[in-house]
Amino acid sequence: MTKKTKVNAAILIIGNEILSGRTCDTNTSTLALWLNSIGVKVQEVKIIPDIEETIISSVNLLRKLYDYVFTTGGIGPTHDDITAQSIAKAFNLDYEIHKEGYKILEKYYKPGEFNESRQKMIWMPKNAKLLLNPTSGAPGFNVENVFCLPGVPSILKSMLGGLKNYIVGGEPILTQTISLRTIESKIAKSLTNIQDNNKDVEIGSYPFFQAGKLGVSIVIRSESQNKIDVCSSQILNFVKEKKIEIVDRE
Amino acid sequence: MTKKTKVNAAILIIGNEILSGRTCDTNTSTLALWLNSIGVKVQEVKIIPDIEETIISSVNLLRKLYDYVFTTGGIGPTHDDITAQSIAKAFNLDYEIHKEGYKILEKYYKPGEFNESRQKMIWMPKNAKLLLNPTSGAPGFNVENVFCLPGVPSILKSMLGGLKNYIVGGEPILTQTISLRTIESKIAKSLTNIQDNNKDVEIGSYPFFQAGKLGVSIVIRSESQNKIDVCSSQILNFVKEKKIEIVDRE
Repeated sequence: MTKKTKVNAAILIIGNEILSGRTCDTNTSTLALWLNSIGVKVQEVKIIPDIEETIISSVNLLRKLYDYVFTTGGIGPTHDDITAQSIAKAFNLDYEIHKEGYKILEKYYKPGEFNESRQKMIWMPKNAKLLLNPTSGAPGFNVENVFCLPGVPSILKSMLGGLKNYIVGGEPILTQTISLRTIESKIAKSLTNIQDNNKDVEIGSYPFFQAGKLGVSIVIRSESQNKIDVCSSQILNFVKEKKIEIVDRE
Repeated sequence: MTKKTKVNAAILIIGNEILSGRTCDTNTSTLALWLNSIGVKVQEVKIIPDIEETIISSVNLLRKLYDYVFTTGGIGPTHDDITAQSIAKAFNLDYEIHKEGYKILEKYYKPGEFNESRQKMIWMPKNAKLLLNPTSGAPGFNVENVFCLPGVPSILKSMLGGLKNYIVGGEPILTQTISLRTIESKIAKSLTNIQDNNKDVEIGSYPFFQAGKLGVSIVIRSESQNKIDVCSSQILNFVKEKKIEIVDRE
């Protein structure tokens, strides 16, 4: 595959527990930070319930819109884990026992413990590629540009190292953050000018409240270090002019 | 408005900082828990970048699909805050200074401090209803079934009390959680049977790891306490049979 400059992705979070508010999703942040580091920009996240037709239609929409789609959740052993069967239907593939996956879990569990419920975890779309899980055995899987990962954050994190081999990213997205002791309304006009003069750089302004004091973090994002440096020096110019204290730069 | 039994909603999280992974979204959980309590079920969450056409198309899609849409983010004073102008375009409304909002902020700030950047926060779609902000003055707004809230979690939380007057919910969605000292594969079959016998109740199974021990939380959700009780007693039956320890019930 030729390396593209810009590579994008969508994340599809599957799970009633996120939509009910019971669980706060942290996988989006984990995946997005990691994807940035290998040159993949997350353009959209969708959180949907454990409903087969919703999973199928969402996956079929997103996989055509973006270079990569990452799903999280719904690949465990219980009745509400329906991601694998839904992905099989989305791709019109048979849903069957994955032989290699079977061998992995057969070794992983003690004799007699690889019961029917656990075997559910290696029912997958036909010819899916396995994504190895160093934490708890049961693998994720990949079909075309769709990568299905577990919902448990610690397990998902442990699988990213292995996942890297499957993803061809573009230029890594670089970031510089300048945190100032000020409020947004005092710098809004200057920032607007800088954004207008640097249209292909992403400049975000985020108020924060830390140790009893207000501040604003300005985040500059681009694939080009040079463009970041240009913006950064323009920001530091007005910061100096306005005599604003710099709290942090990273 | 006649009270419907089932009322649903979508949440639209607007902000590059969530998609980049820099900020972990907590507003979804806050809004979803609160909406459940007033009988509104969140069916979909979408996280999108600060891009006008994406905001417009997402809002126009979601507001037709769901009873209510809640947006978070993008209503501050800086260049990357483009929610209000995008919503105006989505509804084909003029984007103008909101007179009542102007008066609120004029009083809120000290004389001379209500500068141009701060005035940006009361530019809104024509005839939008204000959603009062007891924390930092600048109001959110409402057009038809779309409610635009700030992205800063503490400010968003403080606005929910006032927001309640605008929302007509259905039956509150009730929850019971039974946490067990077991693993999913040991209870998967029994849970599947119970779900099959109680199709209109939502039963979720969520593994957890606490104080060095594995467990599973079973979450039962329904508008009917009676239906929850039926499921709950069926679950407690197999728990007793299998001699599984109950860690917690709430």
